[in-house]
Amino acid sequence: MSRPDEARAHFDPAAGWPPPFLLYLGNAHDDLAAKTARGLAFWRPEWCVGQFRDADCRTTLGLADMDFAQARAAGVNTMIVGVANAGGRMDPRTVAHVVAALDAGMNVASGLHERLGSHPEITAAAQRNGRVLFDAREPPRTPVGTGARRAGRRLLTVGTDCSVGKMYTTLALERELHRRGVRADFRATGQTGIFIAGRGVPIDAVVADFISGGVEWVSPARLDDGWELIEGQGSLYHPSYAGVSLGLLHGAQPDALVLCHEPGRPHMRALPHFPLPDLRECLEANLRAARLTNPDVQAVGVALNTSRLAPAAAGRACREVEDLLGLPAQDPVTMGMDRIVDRLLSCFGG
Amino acid sequence: MSRPDEARAHFDPAAGWPPPFLLYLGNAHDDLAAKTARGLAFWRPEWCVGQFRDADCRTTLGLADMDFAQARAAGVNTMIVGVANAGGRMDPRTVAHVVAALDAGMNVASGLHERLGSHPEITAAAQRNGRVLFDAREPPRTPVGTGARRAGRRLLTVGTDCSVGKMYTTLALERELHRRGVRADFRATGQTGIFIAGRGVPIDAVVADFISGGVEWVSPARLDDGWELIEGQGSLYHPSYAGVSLGLLHGAQPDALVLCHEPGRPHMRALPHFPLPDLRECLEANLRAARLTNPDVQAVGVALNTSRLAPAAAGRACREVEDLLGLPAQDPVTMGMDRIVDRLLSCFGG
Repeated sequence: MSRPDEARAHFDPAAGWPPPFLLYLGNAHDDLAAKTARGLAFWRPEWCVGQFRDADCRTTLGLADMDFAQARAAGVNTMIVGVANAGGRMDPRTVAHVVAALDAGMNVASGLHERLGSHPEITAAAQRNGRVLFDAREPPRTPVGTGARRAGRRLLTVGTDCSVGKMYTTLALERELHRRGVRADFRATGQTGIFIAGRGVPIDAVVADFISGGVEWVSPARLDDGWELIEGQGSLYHPSYAGVSLGLLHGAQPDALVLCHEPGRPHMRALPHFPLPDLRECLEANLRAARLTNPDVQAVGVALNTSRLAPAAAGRACREVEDLLGLPAQDPVTMGMDRIVDRLLSCFGG
Repeated sequence: MSRPDEARAHFDPAAGWPPPFLLYLGNAHDDLAAKTARGLAFWRPEWCVGQFRDADCRTTLGLADMDFAQARAAGVNTMIVGVANAGGRMDPRTVAHVVAALDAGMNVASGLHERLGSHPEITAAAQRNGRVLFDAREPPRTPVGTGARRAGRRLLTVGTDCSVGKMYTTLALERELHRRGVRADFRATGQTGIFIAGRGVPIDAVVADFISGGVEWVSPARLDDGWELIEGQGSLYHPSYAGVSLGLLHGAQPDALVLCHEPGRPHMRALPHFPLPDLRECLEANLRAARLTNPDVQAVGVALNTSRLAPAAAGRACREVEDLLGLPAQDPVTMGMDRIVDRLLSCFGG
């Protein structure tokens, strides 16, 4: 686990939504609905002092349950709306809770597509309490991409599908590189990653012409010998979101790719009519597309999400992928990333 | 040329910015800056009664020069801001002209990234005159794409680069199909195409997650035997915009592709450090990516923009491409699309 001071160093002090956090779960009906809160609690436990759950909530993060006054009394500075509803909308109950949190003296940050500021009662509550609202899905204005080579070394996680563990993998790579004393910085491209890093670009929310430009902006030229570790999104094989994945690939101009996959997934996420791509074909397609902005790109490993497999089956799945692709394969959560980092450093030098 | 009544049939009567049009050129310094106005005047001459040029304007469409009062007296209903500045911004002089056009009694439509409604003086002028503002770059809210197969036959134009003639090609294909009595509808994905068709989706302006969904929306299931002719954008080989092109390809789920190219172009548009892709490689990459949502996709022709070549050289360029790819090659403006339509109909039936 990263040390609190190291993690805190990532947080943009100008962000206006400082930790510690209360994680708002509302009426999240399952673990998936609380994905953002769960990721934040897993990767930044030192920032998360409690959770707020409403009557119908059916999940928990294992944190202390608190109401808004209790959270403020416990020193919370910001409530994070860490739930995802269908369509990214805020229901009236959530709006009322956000107002109550502001009235209790906390800032509020949200990862939903719908903006906090689109609700006049929320804006009014923020103003009367002198609190700050932050929408992680509100993209910065960036230039369009140029594809011009920039200094520094970059790794990008790519996937066979959405939600296969690209963010966890990228953060686990950062942790392993830090453990070895190698400079490396996680660059967030999604709302959960932005909450974890304290900054980033919500690449699925930028205007389409600015996808690669947004990635060039979030990972600019780097003059030390450290690694930029860029969080991937979606998949070149997901027909809803492949455009985002391709713009990300071109903007990242990665030196190294790590392919992320969940063995045994029956079909592309939310699309029962689409099978998963073949692993080798998917890796080749990513390498081919990446060469447009970095002809020297190399694959250095495969990260498998084996959370649905028994340990013996997880080990077998890794060995099968290693035999198939000739790359180290590990689960970032249960096995760590040491062998993939070994490969990365042997390919590119320590 | 399409007959006026046929063209008018495409115009969405609910659009609020009806023809006839005054084309605003402002101080456009070259032909490229007036690209939108030029495309509209070329494809819908029956809608375009005049042009407005300011003192420093260095281009002309060959239309009658008019001020705002003259245009209104000539029956103009809508002024089209058909210029593109760097960054898509409106300078103060343009803002003043838009206000004057509204005060003269015209609606105003713009293809710039910057919205008409973002200028309070423009909004006020529209309100006091009861006129309508239309931003072609304001995208409709659509669902995300699903990749689910939908009824109908679709053709998409793809390109080696931006600005190689994808819109002209798509419109020329529509004209040739209509000439033969085949039902076909141009589906616009850019601001100029939207002005020409009276509707469409500005695909470079949608939120990144909605690229393929926007294309599914603009070309929904079609139950007659007509063709959907979808205007392509960008190129899989343009590092600034390839994400848009890939989302468009997946959302269009094309049965047929026409590859568009300008022979002799020295480098990718605006990027001197990027060479043009190899034609065969570019076509293969588009076919490979298109198969994700339509495994039966076929290439039916190559449209060459030979506007910088002498006629003999243009003919040679077409023959070279035909020999290379085994597909008919024509310039949509100077040669028409008859041979490509022959191939299309022989591949897919009349």
